[in-house]
Amino acid sequence: MNIPKVNNLKRIVIIGAGFAGLQVAKKLRRDKFQVILIDKNNYHTFQPLLYQVATAGLEPDSIAHSIRNIIRKTKNFFFRLAIVHYINTKKQTIHTNVGSLSYDYLIIATGSVTNYFGNKNIESFALPMKSIPEALNLRSLILQDFESALLTTDEKKKIKLMTFVIVGGGPTGVELAGALAEMKKYVLPHDYPDLDIRYMNIHLLQATSRLLDGMSEQSAKQAYKNLKELGVIIWLNSLVKDYNGEIVFMEKNQKIESFNVIWAAGVKGAIIKGFLKEDMEGNRILVNNYLKAIKYKNIFSIGDVAYVNDSKNYPNGYPMTAQPAIQQGNHLARNLNCFIDNIEMMKPFIYKNIGSMATIGRNKAVCDFPYLKLKGFLAWITWMFVHLVNLIGFRNRVIALTNWIIQYFHYNKSVRLIIRPFHRRKKRIT
Amino acid sequence: MNIPKVNNLKRIVIIGAGFAGLQVAKKLRRDKFQVILIDKNNYHTFQPLLYQVATAGLEPDSIAHSIRNIIRKTKNFFFRLAIVHYINTKKQTIHTNVGSLSYDYLIIATGSVTNYFGNKNIESFALPMKSIPEALNLRSLILQDFESALLTTDEKKKIKLMTFVIVGGGPTGVELAGALAEMKKYVLPHDYPDLDIRYMNIHLLQATSRLLDGMSEQSAKQAYKNLKELGVIIWLNSLVKDYNGEIVFMEKNQKIESFNVIWAAGVKGAIIKGFLKEDMEGNRILVNNYLKAIKYKNIFSIGDVAYVNDSKNYPNGYPMTAQPAIQQGNHLARNLNCFIDNIEMMKPFIYKNIGSMATIGRNKAVCDFPYLKLKGFLAWITWMFVHLVNLIGFRNRVIALTNWIIQYFHYNKSVRLIIRPFHRRKKRIT
Repeated sequence: MNIPKVNNLKRIVIIGAGFAGLQVAKKLRRDKFQVILIDKNNYHTFQPLLYQVATAGLEPDSIAHSIRNIIRKTKNFFFRLAIVHYINTKKQTIHTNVGSLSYDYLIIATGSVTNYFGNKNIESFALPMKSIPEALNLRSLILQDFESALLTTDEKKKIKLMTFVIVGGGPTGVELAGALAEMKKYVLPHDYPDLDIRYMNIHLLQATSRLLDGMSEQSAKQAYKNLKELGVIIWLNSLVKDYNGEIVFMEKNQKIESFNVIWAAGVKGAIIKGFLKEDMEGNRILVNNYLKAIKYKNIFSIGDVAYVNDSKNYPNGYPMTAQPAIQQGNHLARNLNCFIDNIEMMKPFIYKNIGSMATIGRNKAVCDFPYLKLKGFLAWITWMFVHLVNLIGFRNRVIALTNWIIQYFHYNKSVRLIIRPFHRRKKRIT
Repeated sequence: MNIPKVNNLKRIVIIGAGFAGLQVAKKLRRDKFQVILIDKNNYHTFQPLLYQVATAGLEPDSIAHSIRNIIRKTKNFFFRLAIVHYINTKKQTIHTNVGSLSYDYLIIATGSVTNYFGNKNIESFALPMKSIPEALNLRSLILQDFESALLTTDEKKKIKLMTFVIVGGGPTGVELAGALAEMKKYVLPHDYPDLDIRYMNIHLLQATSRLLDGMSEQSAKQAYKNLKELGVIIWLNSLVKDYNGEIVFMEKNQKIESFNVIWAAGVKGAIIKGFLKEDMEGNRILVNNYLKAIKYKNIFSIGDVAYVNDSKNYPNGYPMTAQPAIQQGNHLARNLNCFIDNIEMMKPFIYKNIGSMATIGRNKAVCDFPYLKLKGFLAWITWMFVHLVNLIGFRNRVIALTNWIIQYFHYNKSVRLIIRPFHRRKKRIT
């Protein structure tokens, strides 16, 4: 990869520039290490706001930030745009689409990918929303569907085009359902006056008995109430079994006809080839409390892809969200900076849950903090504030805030652009 | 297309939602006409700022505006997203990819497309910049080339990756060359500290003896001087003969090796099938002073695609820019609104040239007004002001202005995102 080694400096290679990888890359001392960050994109994605890209609220530039712009002008730092194919843990090399590279220490922060739980039909026909291109595809598709619905006189087809099924009642599903419901309420009737908006239905399907499993019962109920008020049709205890591109099949033989199924039902660790089964816990890399992969002396893993054994408090591992990732990135950088030559002095990682939140719509959100629960307008303002300060870069914050203010007063979502039309897979598996 | 005809109302179909089509659509009286606007995109593109999308200065949402958002809540107005295949002028029908439609009056405002002057090699390998997806491709490609240049140890390949050849010294070519030169000066050295920026060269090739043919000699000289200062290599009297994907061949046997040739050398009318040779003047539809196609009683044409015979002042037709398009749209709407039943009362169109301008970079622009010529900072401020007020929509203006202010103080171009990688055509025609 055309990066010369420097004497006296240990080389740390970080794979993935999500919340975890970026954090550790920013914090590692450049006088001790040569730091190489690798990602398949040249930008960091602020995933919590992807749903706003999908629903025409924000352009990608508000939630994506060029990695080279985040880490600039620092010595001994290199970024490479590359897709990692596999790791050779014996030779200590990584192999990518643009060449290979040796490492002294390796940090795996590859994050997570959409989990279809092995269902190939769903993987083929449902729409994921884990990346910016996927969110843009969804934006195009929603708008294309309305254009198509205008043209058809076939009532059944019109209904399928205008029915949106969101699978997964976590924060992503709840926020997306809320945003779509607001489009139905405020935006689409003006855009399509010659289309009967009553044909549009938004279904939210959740496998368990409540929404927002990771949040308090109180917040879950509030979200349920708010979504109901916005007209979202909520299905609890409704596990999705299959989807053939036209019909969603649920466990209890219920069906919904729709061309648009958005899959927000789960994620799994994004594993790279080169690890053994015993290095893993499910789809995640098993690490000890020092975030070191159990069987290796120089491989660490942080963020969604890492499974830290904290069975007392988190039997399923830490939540696959931004917070543990950022905390782990910080922690690992501190440990490596201070104790790299004195590994037994390293401090164990302890996760501090500082709260969680979800927004439903205008003036509607829920926040769970350790000693405080918020709902309604106050929660909504808090949600906005927290997301704004966590966006990377002054410009992204200004642009996102400007968009939000204008949308708030205009009751509008402005980015209703089909820049690249998205075409559904045509061949249906039956 | 599922649009019912209304008694008493004449149906006017407008093809194309560029400056001309949008203007006439906005101004036509809905109590007299049923107005149907057709475009292949669901947005209007503000083409004068495409080069800023290509050079990572603005996201598409600043220069694109949803057509349904521009014309909202008006009676007797319909927008359809469709690609027109052909027109049957005898039956008075248009035929599209989503069905056909009859018209009483037809307004053709299809604009222009890139003109490669019949050279298939250039069409295959050079990059156009006439649409938002094309500008985004260019943005991706510039950034991908720098990532690739980092990886290669082959000096010749590195030079080809980092050499940019812009063909055409009109406003588009000049503005693009200036923006690229500023990226070289302010942005790329910080992004790629491990790459020798001296390998990057920007060539601007012009077939005639001066830049900015449509502007004053004085402004052309100023633009030449400013571009030189920014390090752009300018080739006057240098007609491009061919390009094979790696080497640009000029008429006098000069060559430049580059993977990146941007074609801004010309446009031609975007003609729809269904017209006869005698209806045309070159690649444009021949219209009389009332903007009516010569041989037809109910077909009008405006904007880039229309050729108005004003041989005294404009022997080659009016310039294919926004101004004549907007003026013609306005004029035609007024004629149709007032004199549709009294066609001999219609007023002839007279083009008023209110000036032209081009920007080169920070604090550098040239403006030609009828009684005033500006350069430098004052011209640059004027250029910004004129472009801002002409952007459609309050939000687009605010977002573009915010971006410009931040870029001005940060010496930065923030949208350096490769959202959809662009892959060059690999097979070269030799």
